[in-house]
Amino acid sequence: MQISKELLPKKTEQIYDAIVIGGGAGGLSAGIYLKRYMLSTLIIDKGKARSFWMQELHNYLGLPSNTTGRSLLKTGKEHYLSLDGDFLNGFVEEVIDEGETFAIRVKFGRQNSVYPVFRCKYLIAASGIIDYLPQLEDMRNVYEFAGHNLHVCLICDGYEMTDQVVGVFVGSNEVIPVAYSVGWFTPYVKVFTNGLFEVSPENRQKLKEHGYPLFESPVQKFLGDNHQMDGVELEDGSVVELQSGVVSMGSKYHANYLENFDLEHQGGNLVTDKMARTSHPRIFAIGDLKVGLNQVIIAAADGALAATQIWREIRREKGAQRWAEGIKS
Amino acid sequence: MQISKELLPKKTEQIYDAIVIGGGAGGLSAGIYLKRYMLSTLIIDKGKARSFWMQELHNYLGLPSNTTGRSLLKTGKEHYLSLDGDFLNGFVEEVIDEGETFAIRVKFGRQNSVYPVFRCKYLIAASGIIDYLPQLEDMRNVYEFAGHNLHVCLICDGYEMTDQVVGVFVGSNEVIPVAYSVGWFTPYVKVFTNGLFEVSPENRQKLKEHGYPLFESPVQKFLGDNHQMDGVELEDGSVVELQSGVVSMGSKYHANYLENFDLEHQGGNLVTDKMARTSHPRIFAIGDLKVGLNQVIIAAADGALAATQIWREIRREKGAQRWAEGIKS
Repeated sequence: MQISKELLPKKTEQIYDAIVIGGGAGGLSAGIYLKRYMLSTLIIDKGKARSFWMQELHNYLGLPSNTTGRSLLKTGKEHYLSLDGDFLNGFVEEVIDEGETFAIRVKFGRQNSVYPVFRCKYLIAASGIIDYLPQLEDMRNVYEFAGHNLHVCLICDGYEMTDQVVGVFVGSNEVIPVAYSVGWFTPYVKVFTNGLFEVSPENRQKLKEHGYPLFESPVQKFLGDNHQMDGVELEDGSVVELQSGVVSMGSKYHANYLENFDLEHQGGNLVTDKMARTSHPRIFAIGDLKVGLNQVIIAAADGALAATQIWREIRREKGAQRWAEGIKS
Repeated sequence: MQISKELLPKKTEQIYDAIVIGGGAGGLSAGIYLKRYMLSTLIIDKGKARSFWMQELHNYLGLPSNTTGRSLLKTGKEHYLSLDGDFLNGFVEEVIDEGETFAIRVKFGRQNSVYPVFRCKYLIAASGIIDYLPQLEDMRNVYEFAGHNLHVCLICDGYEMTDQVVGVFVGSNEVIPVAYSVGWFTPYVKVFTNGLFEVSPENRQKLKEHGYPLFESPVQKFLGDNHQMDGVELEDGSVVELQSGVVSMGSKYHANYLENFDLEHQGGNLVTDKMARTSHPRIFAIGDLKVGLNQVIIAAADGALAATQIWREIRREKGAQRWAEGIKS
């Protein structure tokens, strides 16, 4: 059930089998599996998962190509709640390893916040990432187009850009090669540094070889209307025409609550085994937080893996019920 | 498009980027991703994937809990065809590695069969498994209940058996421990050997400790009506009441076409890396054929992994398009 303030005293008394931090695709899938394994489960969600912003899921098997991320999340949350899973809207501030259990301190309520502490045996980190967007004075101008034809994921939306004139907005020299991946879908690639860094001579040379124009003046404003971006105005006053764009400026990882743990990372991502377990035996990481493809279908599958492994361990520890324990004996 | 006999001469001339053997959840997901990566793709499907038999998908994120496997496959195939993917109804008889390409010989047409040979650079084995069912004289009696309340997957349907009297139909001593996994969901477990093997003293003792009755006479007939099994009649004449059942008698692997390849296996399953690649650099295996959980959501995610890796390799080999190659220069 959706946990209200009134229920906090009761819910902070129990020890959950698993707490899932993040109510996006990965977290909801994990929650559905956990509940179907008869495990007590709490999902703590701060809201606005990355998929919440997706206008169209183009490649999720079983859903029509124009399904919104929001609708997937809604169906998933209803599914989870129908299995009697607990769901809390809150922000996880800290996780403490108590040995057998984790203590999870949550900020609940925007005003007059309270800080309940929940406990669980296993933790699933499913809080994902969010993409950095170009920082303009008027961020509404960015949000007008982001997730529409100003994309953040080439795997998801490269197909949509076929043969279009595409602006690639990069945050550092390291990600300039994204332009050549865009170049798989279209030869018309324009690269924007947003004035954030000095382009290396090697990158400059290679872009030139490909005939991809480079724009180093910061973006002043995205142009277009009705969520369709059709160009940018730069600070130097020039206007560059585009038909769509991809932002590749890195991501913010929503996992500050794991700072106390010395978990194995690769870049910013958590390293996990085949069952989505991190280097801590009772902490799993699923979806965009872990090494791998940032795709909704992958996050959903990760949820199944983590939940199944947790079930196996709890089941083996508790053992099977005996007939005599039942009431039908 | 759906490949008809008339199209065979044309389609056997081209070299596909990838051919997917199997049009189940994994194969369709791979096909959708491949097409969205602009790769030429053929799915060859013999029909009746394992998921085709599923009456209710209970735990696939984004779909209501009563979605049939058949409906998922239909939506997925429509999605794939809408992306201009090629789809052939046929049975793969043989795969030959020609070095740069694979030659795939297919039996096409039930009557007056022809045997076209298709070629591709990469192969995705997605042809899955099918569960062995108890072999009765009248198999219609088995099919009446299989996939309804005579289940084959505990992970999928354990929840449905909660506190029910469940018959566990096993094919060997090795799988008797499935009874104790069922014992997570209900204490009322009855084990049937179907007369196929001699139960080991250890298994006998442990079942006794759990109070799980053992029936060693072969099943004569499943009882019940309207797809709801409510017991079995054994050859010794006894009738045993049940509320549902799980069959765990092993699986047939649909991958004879890989016999010529010395691929790494674990048990009957193909070993794959994190991108679903087998020990052969151009053969991927996804879904139930590979080591891992046999779940629809996992197969769908596997499809995304294999397709993405194939795209990366082809993309890196071909390189990015240059602006001058386009027509908008």
